[in-house]
Amino acid sequence: MSGRDVADERERAVAAPPPADAGLVFIGLARTPWKSRMDCPRMGRPDGPLCRLEIFEPWTEALRTIALYERLEVLYWLHRSRRDLVLQSPRGGGEARGTFALRSPVRPNPIGSSIVRLIAVEEGALLVRGMDCLDETPLIDIKPDRCLYKPAGPPHPGDLQMESDATGRPVF
Amino acid sequence: MSGRDVADERERAVAAPPPADAGLVFIGLARTPWKSRMDCPRMGRPDGPLCRLEIFEPWTEALRTIALYERLEVLYWLHRSRRDLVLQSPRGGGEARGTFALRSPVRPNPIGSSIVRLIAVEEGALLVRGMDCLDETPLIDIKPDRCLYKPAGPPHPGDLQMESDATGRPVF
Repeated sequence: MSGRDVADERERAVAAPPPADAGLVFIGLARTPWKSRMDCPRMGRPDGPLCRLEIFEPWTEALRTIALYERLEVLYWLHRSRRDLVLQSPRGGGEARGTFALRSPVRPNPIGSSIVRLIAVEEGALLVRGMDCLDETPLIDIKPDRCLYKPAGPPHPGDLQMESDATGRPVF
Repeated sequence: MSGRDVADERERAVAAPPPADAGLVFIGLARTPWKSRMDCPRMGRPDGPLCRLEIFEPWTEALRTIALYERLEVLYWLHRSRRDLVLQSPRGGGEARGTFALRSPVRPNPIGSSIVRLIAVEEGALLVRGMDCLDETPLIDIKPDRCLYKPAGPPHPGDLQMESDATGRPVF
């Protein structure tokens, strides 16, 4: 189920509820040079190896105009990760950390995210640098990097909203 | 189903496959000041209103040590978005764009991501700034911002890997 198979005594697994709150459709898969978890980089780098994001039908048309953006955010499904650890220990030792304080692939919803450089657009595929996942990892989303993106369409009232009220306290 | 109800003639909907490739569990919900899509900011801002990320059991223990990070990446499920558009037109007019060239909530897997500032840690909850979603949006993941994160544990061989080979071409 996972690259890290056994929880040690500092780690904690929970009885996770069934993952039935929403369903994902895989929109494609990532072709990368890495065939085992231990070979993968722990985080992608912008000068990393060229990888191909292959998009399945009926989604290829959703790539139209993507060349406008030189950096993209990619979400993928870490399909070999266990999902029930709330505390995890680094392999090299050290204090156990909460799963939400880690970017480990082991998490309740094992979604990885990378910021990648778009190198080329092919028919139904993208060549990118910056991935860090196993070859044939399923893709779930691609979108422009937030820093490069200006929303289209008219402004919303919330766009410039800052403090919730004069006290700075939540209003909900 | 969506804040944008009708596709105009420049938009394109597809017969989307059933979203049955993987299942999500909601780990909590976001409390925000926004009750309608038109009120939401189109993108969060670091000085935006204070919002609360409320974590469900059995996941609250996964928040341990999260105060180490002043910025977090939050993934949430845009539960009111349609999922079948591959081309979308800005409401104000303009060329239709591919869904993967937009950060619109309308996408095959309607996952939103924000980078938020962590303001305070409460019992089973986080106070943050930088969200942009409706009140009561389900949460699916929280992790440290990639720019602040140093992976724990020993290095992997791929960490420093750059070109795939001398030609710079993919090796898969």
